[in-house]
Parts: sequence; structure tokens; C-alpha cells
Amino acid sequence: KRQGFPEIIFGEGKTAEHILSISKALREKGETVLVTRVSKEKAELVQSVYPDFIYEETARMLYWKEAVEQQEDSYVAVLCAGTSDLPVAEEAAITAEVLGCPVRRIYDVGVAGIHRLLSHLEEIQKASVVVTVAGMEGALPSVVGGLVSVPVIAVPTSIGYGASFHGLSALLTMLNSCASGISVVNIDNGFGGGYNAALIYQLVQKGVR
Amino acid sequence: KRQGFPEIIFGEGKTAEHILSISKALREKGETVLVTRVSKEKAELVQSVYPDFIYEETARMLYWKEAVEQQEDSYVAVLCAGTSDLPVAEEAAITAEVLGCPVRRIYDVGVAGIHRLLSHLEEIQKASVVVTVAGMEGALPSVVGGLVSVPVIAVPTSIGYGASFHGLSALLTMLNSCASGISVVNIDNGFGGGYNAALIYQLVQKGVR
Amino acid sequence: KRQGFPEIIFGEGKTAEHILSISKALREKGETVLVTRVSKEKAELVQSVYPDFIYEETARMLYWKEAVEQQEDSYVAVLCAGTSDLPVAEEAAITAEVLGCPVRRIYDVGVAGIHRLLSHLEEIQKASVVVTVAGMEGALPSVVGGLVSVPVIAVPTSIGYGASFHGLSALLTMLNSCASGISVVNIDNGFGGGYNAALIYQLVQKGVR
Amino acid sequence: KRQGFPEIIFGEGKTAEHILSISKALREKGETVLVTRVSKEKAELVQSVYPDFIYEETARMLYWKEAVEQQEDSYVAVLCAGTSDLPVAEEAAITAEVLGCPVRRIYDVGVAGIHRLLSHLEEIQKASVVVTVAGMEGALPSVVGGLVSVPVIAVPTSIGYGASFHGLSALLTMLNSCASGISVVNIDNGFGGGYNAALIYQLVQKGVR
Amino acid sequence: KRQGFPEIIFGEGKTAEHILSISKALREKGETVLVTRVSKEKAELVQSVYPDFIYEETARMLYWKEAVEQQEDSYVAVLCAGTSDLPVAEEAAITAEVLGCPVRRIYDVGVAGIHRLLSHLEEIQKASVVVTVAGMEGALPSVVGGLVSVPVIAVPTSIGYGASFHGLSALLTMLNSCASGISVVNIDNGFGGGYNAALIYQLVQKGVR
Amino acid sequence: KRQGFPEIIFGEGKTAEHILSISKALREKGETVLVTRVSKEKAELVQSVYPDFIYEETARMLYWKEAVEQQEDSYVAVLCAGTSDLPVAEEAAITAEVLGCPVRRIYDVGVAGIHRLLSHLEEIQKASVVVTVAGMEGALPSVVGGLVSVPVIAVPTSIGYGASFHGLSALLTMLNSCASGISVVNIDNGFGGGYNAALIYQLVQKGVR
Amino acid sequence: KRQGFPEIIFGEGKTAEHILSISKALREKGETVLVTRVSKEKAELVQSVYPDFIYEETARMLYWKEAVEQQEDSYVAVLCAGTSDLPVAEEAAITAEVLGCPVRRIYDVGVAGIHRLLSHLEEIQKASVVVTVAGMEGALPSVVGGLVSVPVIAVPTSIGYGASFHGLSALLTMLNSCASGISVVNIDNGFGGGYNAALIYQLVQKGVR
Amino acid sequence: KRQGFPEIIFGEGKTAEHILSISKALREKGETVLVTRVSKEKAELVQSVYPDFIYEETARMLYWKEAVEQQEDSYVAVLCAGTSDLPVAEEAAITAEVLGCPVRRIYDVGVAGIHRLLSHLEEIQKASVVVTVAGMEGALPSVVGGLVSVPVIAVPTSIGYGASFHGLSALLTMLNSCASGISVVNIDNGFGGGYNAALIYQLVQKGVR
Ligand SMILES: Nc1ncnc2c1ncn2[C@@H]1O[C@H](COP(=O)(O)O)[C@@H](O)[C@H]1O
Ligand SMILES: Nc1ncnc2c1ncn2[C@@H]1O[C@H](COP(=O)(O)O)[C@@H](O)[C@H]1O
Ligand SMILES: Nc1ncnc2c1ncn2[C@@H]1O[C@H](COP(=O)(O)O)[C@@H](O)[C@H]1O
Ligand SMILES: Nc1ncnc2c1ncn2[C@@H]1O[C@H](COP(=O)(O)O)[C@@H](O)[C@H]1O
Ligand SMILES: [Mg+2]
Ligand SMILES: [Mg+2]
Ligand SMILES: [Mg+2]
Ligand SMILES: [Mg+2]
Ligand SMILES: [Mg+2]
Ligand SMILES: [Mg+2]
Ligand SMILES: [Mg+2]
Ligand SMILES: [Mg+2]
Repeated sequence: KRQGFPEIIFGEGKTAEHILSISKALREKGETVLVTRVSKEKAELVQSVYPDFIYEETARMLYWKEAVEQQEDSYVAVLCAGTSDLPVAEEAAITAEVLGCPVRRIYDVGVAGIHRLLSHLEEIQKASVVVTVAGMEGALPSVVGGLVSVPVIAVPTSIGYGASFHGLSALLTMLNSCASGISVVNIDNGFGGGYNAALIYQLVQKGVR
Repeated sequence: KRQGFPEIIFGEGKTAEHILSISKALREKGETVLVTRVSKEKAELVQSVYPDFIYEETARMLYWKEAVEQQEDSYVAVLCAGTSDLPVAEEAAITAEVLGCPVRRIYDVGVAGIHRLLSHLEEIQKASVVVTVAGMEGALPSVVGGLVSVPVIAVPTSIGYGASFHGLSALLTMLNSCASGISVVNIDNGFGGGYNAALIYQLVQKGVR
Repeated sequence: KRQGFPEIIFGEGKTAEHILSISKALREKGETVLVTRVSKEKAELVQSVYPDFIYEETARMLYWKEAVEQQEDSYVAVLCAGTSDLPVAEEAAITAEVLGCPVRRIYDVGVAGIHRLLSHLEEIQKASVVVTVAGMEGALPSVVGGLVSVPVIAVPTSIGYGASFHGLSALLTMLNSCASGISVVNIDNGFGGGYNAALIYQLVQKGVR
Repeated sequence: KRQGFPEIIFGEGKTAEHILSISKALREKGETVLVTRVSKEKAELVQSVYPDFIYEETARMLYWKEAVEQQEDSYVAVLCAGTSDLPVAEEAAITAEVLGCPVRRIYDVGVAGIHRLLSHLEEIQKASVVVTVAGMEGALPSVVGGLVSVPVIAVPTSIGYGASFHGLSALLTMLNSCASGISVVNIDNGFGGGYNAALIYQLVQKGVR
Repeated sequence: KRQGFPEIIFGEGKTAEHILSISKALREKGETVLVTRVSKEKAELVQSVYPDFIYEETARMLYWKEAVEQQEDSYVAVLCAGTSDLPVAEEAAITAEVLGCPVRRIYDVGVAGIHRLLSHLEEIQKASVVVTVAGMEGALPSVVGGLVSVPVIAVPTSIGYGASFHGLSALLTMLNSCASGISVVNIDNGFGGGYNAALIYQLVQKGVR
Repeated sequence: KRQGFPEIIFGEGKTAEHILSISKALREKGETVLVTRVSKEKAELVQSVYPDFIYEETARMLYWKEAVEQQEDSYVAVLCAGTSDLPVAEEAAITAEVLGCPVRRIYDVGVAGIHRLLSHLEEIQKASVVVTVAGMEGALPSVVGGLVSVPVIAVPTSIGYGASFHGLSALLTMLNSCASGISVVNIDNGFGGGYNAALIYQLVQKGVR
Repeated sequence: KRQGFPEIIFGEGKTAEHILSISKALREKGETVLVTRVSKEKAELVQSVYPDFIYEETARMLYWKEAVEQQEDSYVAVLCAGTSDLPVAEEAAITAEVLGCPVRRIYDVGVAGIHRLLSHLEEIQKASVVVTVAGMEGALPSVVGGLVSVPVIAVPTSIGYGASFHGLSALLTMLNSCASGISVVNIDNGFGGGYNAALIYQLVQKGVR
Repeated sequence: KRQGFPEIIFGEGKTAEHILSISKALREKGETVLVTRVSKEKAELVQSVYPDFIYEETARMLYWKEAVEQQEDSYVAVLCAGTSDLPVAEEAAITAEVLGCPVRRIYDVGVAGIHRLLSHLEEIQKASVVVTVAGMEGALPSVVGGLVSVPVIAVPTSIGYGASFHGLSALLTMLNSCASGISVVNIDNGFGGGYNAALIYQLVQKGVR
């Protein structure tokens, strides 16, 4: 566990019972609980014990955290290219939120409709850190990286068909971006995108180390 | 040979003598001569016999064609992302020109600096057909495809390093483009980009078939 | 949306309700509606509201458009190599038709039976633009490209097994074609093939820009 | 060593001295000598000792064999798609010749110019076995396989650029051929193509085993 | 259709009705019928109309052919490495049989137990042509190729896991074989293996062309 | 150009004259100059005009910047696994320094000698952001990511042979890291590693945005 | 069958009856029986005949062996990185046990939590041979290889998603390890890991050959 | 450094001076010195200072070790398939020798000539551990693994062309071997093969741990 950051449970391949027991341990210590890649069925089983746990179906995430007052003038921006990228984008957004960051969602702003993206320019440029989620050609971070002066975390998704090769195309695009200030996480790793953004956001909040 | 189109000589791997002899045959029939991928040395040897042949060093092309009056209100637009893509872009542009098309070059308009691209929007949108040349992440055609309503020929280049895998990254990006109206040719195939553009341009000039 | 071209709905991953609501919006404006990659079940749900929508099962497309008088002396030719390529070929053909182009289907003309292909030579050579659809070795566009003097859009399909690697073999074949005048779209992207063909066909109809 | 077939020396990586000593051993036994992938320099060194050895520069092969009366009504046909494929085609042709087969060379008959190929149809169809050599899209064996009723050995070459990936494209094409009766050897393995053809040709000559 | 060879129906993706109607046409002309990759269910439907059709479950093949007297002193040998390769080996064997060749099956002779293979040496060496079927490391043709002096058709299978990459490992092994006289067909293409073997066998039977 | 950050010149493929003229423009405005991937020869030509430019041979970088007082209690840590990774690590380190960050270099701390790495634990854990550079198996960021609670930028290098496939192995390792808080840049992109680190470092210095 | 080692049955693709009959043959000779990759259902069928056969569900293995007195001061250590790697690790551990080796399991010691691994250092360093099982980035053997002076068998698993490409990432990592004394088996080949370890362990027990 | 094993210097990319200084340090402590991948030029420079250092040109290795009495009844066997694999085989053999193992070299025993391999059977079967080195199809370890009951270390080499993809073919073959008791090291990693063999050999010499 990182300092000050909750432990996050990778739900895939774990039984509901297993998830419940880890959740219990964390909850009893008053810590934030965040489970990723968990099915609705398993989540409901946990919720039957802890009804105040929230389940986000699109992102397939289950969590509980104490309510915190949030300043809203600084935030993490989460962008995604198409509606099919939503589950990954939501995984990123909720991860960042559960880790204590205000999040602005700017969705469906793929580069094939550049004016839609540009219409959100001000909000994007005011973010402390930007997460860009995109499948298929994965070109969103390249354009965004050229528009902002903060770090951009690029999350390729497996959305696409044929020569997208399950996200390989988007991954390569992002790794080869001409824009500077971009770094990349694994295909469909929305969690990683949100986590890296939250790490940076929290560092900035704390100021000089 | 296509109807009305000159035969084009692929210079790679041919000796200067071989190129000269094919050129002679074409020139004697009064036909346009176009040699691609030809080194300066070989070109000069041909030029010593035919001093009116033009050699374009960046594009590594050698050609001769009769002067033709060109209408300038309709044209092929050739765009490229970075200065390193110039040789491929020039191969496309000169191919289209030798095949009888007016060409507008709009270079160094990569998507990481989107405003530079947008500053040429009107000129791009007035083209009859657009050729977009890009290496590394190869995102240019995706943005351009969303801005124009004519066919976009996408030419990936081998410019880049590491995970660009000699143009594979740009190629996959272009094949997976979310924008419609885009079709793709081989990596570094500037000739193919220019040829396809010229085919379309000439069809349009001739009007209803 | 491109000028003069209807907006097309990518049906994959969208609910019937979502498709219906987008369709409604377009229909109310009197615009053409075209939904690709939509299942029979979802299509029927939309048809229960709009009985004049047409569903093409092989191509998995749903559409509605105003009847238009069509000139039949110029057309888009859609060729495919084998009967297994039919769904992709139909996606291309119907896309072109819905976008206002007369279409001639010339199917099952794979190069392993070259005389069948050649028996259609005249019809192929009279087309304004040709779409060639092929899986496995994907050699059809190479032969066709050498026979016609108009643009050829090549659509690789995922038909095949073993070393076809889900369409990769056909895709590479088409990108490396020795014939000039060929450009390529993504594996199984029949829509892209038809769209590019329609773009070119319509440009030609309108004549000098 | 196969029964009745000479031992063949793979010249790559062997010194001239090494090649000379193996050649001597074979020659002294009165056996055919065939060295593949040997440079002109090394060949000349061997020829300075054995002036009756023949060196074929295009194929990079060195050989000596006893003159044999050949029947010319049955033969191996070696086809290649482009002039750049010549070295590999010659490696196949000479291998077959040295192994005792009459060979007909039918070169530069790529499928992008199908009528050139078809103009040789009769000669191709009369062959006992056909070797087809092609790079880039490698479509030649598919067309030929559909035209003949004898085995077709397909030899992909590394000729091409970009997405040809050093012969991978042609290799995959050939493995996925829709035509039956085709089998494939390694990229640039002209020797293998000629050897397999000769094996079949000789079996047929000998008749029922 | 090749001269003297029946037309073969690729069953995959065809309906039972479709298969039945093609079968009818062939049967009525008294021709051999061979359907590959056909499920038991579809086969039974055809058999309910033609009870004398034979269905081979392991190979998933359905066929009918006139009884022919066969000489048994010359034959095609079909070898496979492991029991999991049996369906592909049987596809090869039955194809060759239906095309009129006597076949000897020598199964489960993988190179990791070389003595088992060598115990069949005489039978293997007397074959007119050998088909070798193997998955995983696919080394069988390399050993066999060194033991016989007739053509060896190598059929890689998709048997294996992990780094076998669905037959890629076996395919590459076979293409890179050090033994000469080997040619390769597509992964799991038992039909291709049997067809090529039969072509050669029949040529040899007919003797000098 | 990012706000507050100098424009950086990618030296590869640019002539010394070209580099000099861009450098001049920046220097005349009093701005920091940073040229990456520049050879010693080209650098010396620029230095003959601007003798106060510094050239770092290992990193192949040329720069000039105004001396700034630096606080030394907060810093960017740059780690590398082996001595062969030094050029990439230095590219990262110097990039960060030129962009105004204090840098601590901790080199030759590959995971195959874990105790060497652990002997630097305190210094690593006090960094504001960590850049980890590694080739071959590229495991360094995974171990470091588990030890620190700040962002880790992972830079794969092309160091290795055989199955390292020019950095692919290290790249995949880093993308698949089990540790959270890691993001990845292109193979050999030391510049990208240093730039991302500097972006984060400067954000943190400025505190709440 | 190796000398002194039981024959092991690969259960995948074999029927329960087939497995039973091979088991019978071995059991009747009093030999150890080990079946890998066998489902619970098939195992139970065998157990209904031989109730003293043991089935290990996680490892999907069925076996029977005579009880042997084991020395416990020397042993094979089996390590795995994450809980998802357990089935493969158990396959390795049980294989080694059935082949007569004492085994120590040290699980969930991935390198992203290096202190957990180091807390087992003494036990790991006392092993005669170490098997390391890991998916995702597969970095465990690199760290372990640097800590021990005995052979390390590395088993990559297919655990992971996205750019893990079904175990390719872990496989490449292990092949490129900087630590010496590491050798690698196929992805998910727990059996191979255990078998190699047992071979070495038994050789060592027997002492000088 | 492993217990009891000398430190080995990876010569690639190190200057002669660097190699000399590390060598000095080791030699002064009376330790064995082994430098891999070192050119003749660099080696000679070191030898001018230490004339008793031995340089093996084929293996590109430089070493010095104290003379030790060796028992010759137990040994490491190093096998290679073709003469082109010699440099890698020698790297393995010399590594094992310098690490104190008697070594028997059995070269040029590729599986395409199985009888040559079998003629060495007794010597191979008496080895304590076997290293098998092979390029192209890399089938040697599969056959050897089935013949011996000791561990087999498989070393793929990059020898081959075309679809050998620089050793990938041999690597995959070895990873997928049907024989048990085989483990694999990186392409061309003769050092790794010899090191692993020596580790096992020495363990066995020492007997029960
Ligand atoms: N969706 C996710 N993708 C990648 N890593 C995750 C994900 N969810 C949790 N993790 C990480 O997985 C680790 C927990 O794994 P586990 O012990 O299997 O629950 C934590 O370090 C998390 O940071
Ligand atoms: N740079 C190029 N890239 C791809 N194809 C080309 C190029 N230049 C010429 N060609 C084509 O190559 C053919 C001529 O090849 P060749 O007969 O070898 O000169 C013509 O059909 C051209 O269309
Ligand atoms: N160009 C070639 N490509 C592939 N194999 C070859 C070639 N030339 C000769 N060979 C084979 O290589 C073997 C001889 O190799 P070597 O002992 O190294 O001379 C013979 O079995 C030949 O059949
Ligand atoms: N040829 C080689 N291939 C792979 N690893 C080697 C080789 N030679 C030496 N090594 C390893 O490289 C390490 C030394 O690397 P270095 O510190 O760069 O000299 C030692 O751990 C050796 O075990
Ligand atoms: Mg930016
Ligand atoms: Mg558009
Ligand atoms: Mg054409
Ligand atoms: Mg045929
Ligand atoms: Mg043979
Ligand atoms: Mg961390
Ligand atoms: Mg070690
Ligand atoms: Mg063995």
C-alpha cells in the first residue's frame, strides 16, 4: 500500500466471499474500499452485508469511502474518444474520485470531430492532470497533449475490430505520440490511468515535498 | 498501363542503363516519363542524355512531361505531419503533378499542434481530394477526415523509433481511423498516395462517366 | 457529418433504444438513416416503430431512404472473391446504395478461378469505381487493379483459418499490391469500402469542383 | 544425401577454401557439384582450380555436371512475378536443371498484368510441375494454381517494402491460397522450390514406383 | 476443377441444404463427392437422402466414390506426431484416398520418441510421397525429410498451448526445415496435405507426361 | 510549446545549419535551448558559434540555459538498470535538469542485484518523481513502483539481444507491471521520461493550481 | 519414458475412459500414475475405480504413488508472484512431489512487494533448485536468480490482460533476464517447471554420476 | 556473484580499457576471469598485459583460470545442429569449461541427418547434463530430450533466413517441445546454456545439499 493511499482490490478472478473478507478488513480499519473489475452479482452479495457500498455498473467497480469536502477549482479531467470507451473512462474517473480527486468527465470527444473537442478547450486546459481514454486509432492524447501544459496519462482501449488487434493499434499510437508530456498505461487499464492521475493530483495538492 | 495515364518506372534496383532505355522508349513516343526511387547518381546519368529531365532530390524522382496549362481553382492537397515526412509527401505531390493535377502542399501540420492545421482549414476543405502523410502515431488523417467531405488517402511513413516498428504504428492508426472517407496505402508509398489522388482528381475533371 | 452525406450509425454495442432514438432524430428531419452492424432482433424493434425501414440480414444493416430516380449507365462495382465474403461485400454494396450510388454486384470471382472473373471484364471496366472484397490470400484487388483504370478500394476480410490470422494475410496482400490505383480499408470494413466508393462516385457525378 | 540426388552445398558462411575442398571430394567421385549462395569472388577462386565449373551470377550459384541428353517434351516451369524476383527464380531454375530437369523460364508475369500471364497459358499448362516465385503481395501461385492440374511450388521472396515485412506478406498469401495443389517453401528459398520440383519431376519420369 | 480430379466442397459455413444440393449435382453426374469440415448433424441430413455416403467423424468429412481396385504396392504415407493431430491427419488421409490413392497411416510417431518413428522406417521409405502432420514444435517433417527421397508435404497443426500461438510455432519450424524436399501448407490444412500428395501420386502413376 | 517550458529540438535528421538557426532564434529571445539526438560533429559546429553551449556526449544532447539557484531538498530521481542503459538515462536526467529540476542519478541498480537497489532506498523514496530506465527484461520499474509512493515514469531501452526484440520485451514488461503508479513512454525515449518527470516536478513546486 | 521416472499422462483432449485405461496399465505394474490437465469430472470417474487416487483441483492433476519416506533438509522451492498464478504453481509443485521431491511452496511473493519476497530469503536460498511462476510482467525469476546460486526454472503464465498478450510479456521478460542461471519453459507449463526441477533434484540426490 | 562461481564480464559495448580494469581486479584476487562477446582486437589489448589469457576466436571469449585436475568420467555434453551454430555452441562449451566442467563437443548432428546423431547416442546418454544448440527449425532438443534422462538446456540460434525471423522460429520450437526435461534460454545465449549446465553439473558433483 502506498502512503496515504488505500489498498485497491483487483476483483477479477476473486470470489464474492474473498472480496467480502478483504473489504471487511479494510472497512473495519475505517479505510476506503475500492474493488475493480467486479461483476454486479458479486457486488450485490457484498452490498447485502454493507448496504452503503456503491456499485458502478459501467465501470464494474464497488467502493466505499468517507464523504470529504472537495475543492472544485482544481480537478482531474477524464476524456474519452467514443461512447464505447466509457467503461474504461469510468474506471479511471471513479478510481481518481475514490482516491480523493475532483473529476470532470469530458466524453465522446474523438479527434475525428475535432471541433467538439475544441469546444471543451478551456475546461481541459484548467485541469491539473488529464486522463485520455481512446480505442481504435487512439489519437486523442496526441491532440490533447499539444493543447495542455500538464501531464497527460494515455489509456488505450481494446475497442475496435480487425487491424485494431485488441488495442494494439491504440497502444502503439499513444507510445509514438509526437506531443510531449504523455505517458501510457496498459490496454483497458482505466484503473492505472486514474491512479496515476490521482498520484500526481495529490502531490500537487500537498505542494513542495 | 492505365488508360490515359503514363507508365511509371519503379527505379529501385534498376541500373541507370536500364532506366535510360525504358525512358528512351517512352520519350520517343512523346509520353510522360516518371521514375520513382532513383538516386541522384543514376538520375544525372539519364540527364546527361536528356538534359530537360527534371530530378527532384527530396522525392528521389526523375521525370519529363509536356508543359500543360493548368486550371488552379481545383487541386489535390498534400499534407504532411512533420518535416521528416517530406520525402514521402514530395513523392506523392510530384506523382500527382506529373499525372496532370495542380497540387497544394500543406506541410508540417501534425496533430500535436492542431491550431497550425486548423489555420489551413479553408485551403484543405476546397481540395478535390486530400493526401495525408504521417509517421510516428499517424493521427493526421483521422483529424483531416473529420474536416473534409472528399476522399482522404492516408500514407503512413516509417519515420519514428522504438514502438513505431518502422511504420507499423502509423499504418495501424490509419487503418483504424474513426473518420470515414479514409483509405490507406503501404508504408512510405508516397507514389501510391499521389497516384490514387490523381486517379480520383482526373475522374472528377472528366465528370460523369 | 460530411456535406450532403447522411450520418451513419455504428450499431455495434448500442442498445435498440439508443438506435431507435438516433434514428428518430434523423427521420424527423427527413434524412436518410443507415445503421450498420445491427442484429436482427434490434432491427425488428426499430421496425416495429418504423415499418418502412429495411433490414438486410446478410449485411446486418438497417436503413431508410427516400426513393430516388437513378441513372443506370454509371455505377459502383462491388466484387467479392468467395461466398463467405458476402456479408462484408453486402455491407459495402448497401452502404453505397444508401449513399445514392447505383451498384453492380459481381460475386464469387476469386482469382483461383480467373476465367470467371474475366467473364465479367466489360462490366467491371465500365464502373466508375470498384470495391473488391476478399479474405484468405486477398489477391483479388491486385488482378482487378491491373484491369481497370479507376480507383479500386480493397476490403480485406477475416475469412480464412490458420495463417490467415483473422484477416492479417489479406490485409498485407492488399497493402503490398503491385497494381497501382489501390487503397485499403480495415479488415471486414465493408462500410468503409462502400463509403469511399460513394464519395468518389458522387464527386464524379458533380463533376469539376 | 537423397538417393540418386547430388549433395548440395549451402555456400553462405563457408570460406572459398571450404567450398573448394567439398567440391573436390564430389568431383573426384564424378558427382554433380552444386553450391548455392556463393559470391562471385569465392566462385572465381574455385573456378581457378576447376575452369569447367559454371558460375551463374544472378542466382549466385556455382556448379558442374556431366552433360546429359534431355527430353524436351516434359519440363519444369519456373514463373516469377517481377524482375526483382529474378535471383530467387534463377536459384530455383538452375537447381532443377542441375538436378536433371529441363526447365522453361516464364518471367515477369505478375498478376497485376494478368494478360501477360495468360499469354503463356499453354506452356504453363503443359509443365509437369510449376514453381512460382513472387514477392510483395505474392498472388501469383493463387492464379496459377487455378489454371494447372499439376503441383505448384510457391516461393515467396523478400522483395517489397513497408508492410511486406521482408517477405512475410507474400508468405502468408501463399499459405492462404484458395487454389488447391499449392505448397510453400521458406522466403527466398529458390533452392527449395527447385529441389521440390525436381523431386516430383524425377519421380514422374521414373513412373510407378 | 482440376483435370481428372473431383470438385471438393469446403463445408465450413455452408448449410446442410447447400451441401446437399451441390452433392446432388455431382452425384447425378456420377462424380466423386467430397465435403470437408462438415459437422455430424449436417452430414446426417445429407445421408438421410444418400445413405451410401460415408461420414468420417474424426476428420469431419463426408464422401461418396465409386469402388476402385487399388494396387497396394505403391502408396501415400500419412504420418502424425501425436494423437491430438489425428483429425488433421485423417483429413489428409481420407482426401488422398477419395482422390484414388492407397494410404498407409503411421500415427503417433513424434520425434521425442525417435525409436518409434524409426521402427516404421521401411514402410515410410517405400512410400511414393509422404504427408507429415504435427503441432507444437512441428519437428516431424525435418526428421522424415532426412530419411526419405520423395517429396514430403508438411502440415502444421494448431495443437499446443502458450508459445505455440495456435500453430505458428509448428508452421515456422516446417518452413525453416534443414532437410530438403519439404513443402508446407496452411495450419490445420489436412485437406491441402492430402490433395498435394494425391496430385503427386497420380502424376507418378501416369508416368512421363 | 508548453507554457513556461522551452521548445525542444529533435536533432535527428536535421542538419547542423538547421539546428543552428533554430538555436539562434531561441537564444536571441533569451530562452533555454535543448537539442536532443545530436551528433558530436553537429554539436561542435553549433558550439563554434555559441561556445557557451554544453554538449553531453553520452546523452547526445546540446543545450544552453541560464544558471538558476536550485533547492536541493526536493528532486527527480533517475534510475537505470545497467551501464548500457546510460545514454537513455542521461537523456532523461539532462532533460529534467534543463527543464529546471534538481536530479539525482542512481545507476546500475538492476533487479538481478536487488541489494544494490535497496541500498539506495532512502534516496529513492525521498524523490518527488522517479524515472526508471531499463532494457532486457525491464523489471526495474515494477520493483521501484512497489517501494515509492510517487509517480514512476518507466523508460524501456532497446538494450538486449535475441528475444528482447529491440526493446519490445522491456516495453511489455513495463506496461504489464503489477505495481501501480507506473506509466510508460516509447522505447529509448529518455527525453520523454525526463520531460514527464519535469512536468510533474514543476507542477508540485507550484503547488495548488 | 525417462529412466527411473514415471510416464506422465497429458489429460487434455483425452476421454475419461482413455485416461482410465492408461492408468490401469501403469498401476498394475506398480508404477506411479500422474495425469495433468484433467477435469474434476474425468478424475472422479477414474477415482470411482481407484479410490486411492488423489485429485488436486487447483492444479487439475490426478495421481497415485507409493508412500515414500522423504528427507526434509533438501527440497525444491516453488515460488509464485500472485494468487492468480496458483494453478500453474501447484501444477509445478505436485509434479515435483509425485516425482519424489520434497517441495516448499512460497506463494504471492511478486516483485512489486519486494519485502514479502525478501522475508523468505533464507528458505529460498537453501533450496536445491527453484521454480518461479509469474504472469503479467514476469519479473520474479530475475530477482530470485540474483539471490540464489542454484538453477532457477522460470514458468511464465498467461495471467494478465491487454499487452500481456496471453503470457507473451512474461515469457519475453524471463528469456531476457539479466540474472544468470535461469532457464525458461512454455507459458503455463507448470508441469515442465516441476519436471525440470525434479530432474535436477534427483540428479543431485544421486550425486556424482 | 554466485557462491563459488566467478563473476563473468559481458564484453559487448565495453571498451578494452574497461575490460582490462575489471579483469585486473579479478586476477589480482586470484579469481577466474571470463569475458564474453569480446572482439579479437580488444582481447589482444588485454593479452598484451596478461599474456597468459586465452582468446577463443570462434566463441569470441577471453579467459584465464587456474589449471585444475579434471575427472573425465562425468561431463557436460554440448551438441549443435549445424556448422553455423558453432560460435554459440563454443560459447556454451567454453563457459562450462571455465566454470570447471569437463565438456564433450558433439557437433553437426542436426535432426535432418538423424543417423549421425544416433551414432553418438552412448556418449550423449552418459552426460550429466546436455546443452543443445540449434538454429533454423531448432528441432534438436526435442529429439535429444527423448533420448536422455538428464536435463537438456536448449539454446536457439539466429542462424537461418526468411521465416526464421532471426531465431524466433528455433525459440518457439524449443519452448513447445513435446519432450520433457527441456528448458530454454535466449536466442544466441550460448553463455546462458553453458552457465545453466555448469550450475547443474557442479550441484551434482557436490551431491546432496
Ligand atoms: N483494474 C486493475 N488493473 C490493474 N491493476 C489493478 C486493478 N485493480 C487493482 N489493481 C492493483 O492490483 C493490486 C491488488 O491486486 P490483488 O492483490 O490481486 O487484489 C493493487 O496493487 C492494485 O493497485
Ligand atoms: N515508388 C513506387 N512504389 C510503389 N509502386 C511503384 C513505385 N514506382 C512505380 N511503381 C509501380 O511499379 C510499376 C512499375 O514497376 P517496374 O516494371 O518494376 O518498373 C508501375 O506499375 C508503377 O505503378
Ligand atoms: N540456398 C539454400 N537454401 C536452403 N537450403 C540449402 C541451400 N543450399 C543448400 N541447401 C541445403 O543445405 C544442405 C547442406 O548444408 P551444408 O552442410 O551446410 O552445406 C543440403 O542438405 C542442401 O539440401
Ligand atoms: N554473453 C552473455 N549473455 C548473457 N549474459 C551474459 C553474457 N556474458 C556475461 N553475462 C552476464 O552479464 C553479467 C555481467 O554484466 P556486466 O556487468 O555488464 O559485465 C553477469 O551476471 C553475467 O552473468
Ligand atoms: Mg502537452
Ligand atoms: Mg471526412
Ligand atoms: Mg488499375
Ligand atoms: Mg491447381
Ligand atoms: Mg528428404
Ligand atoms: Mg508505487
Ligand atoms: Mg542466480
Ligand atoms: Mg528427456
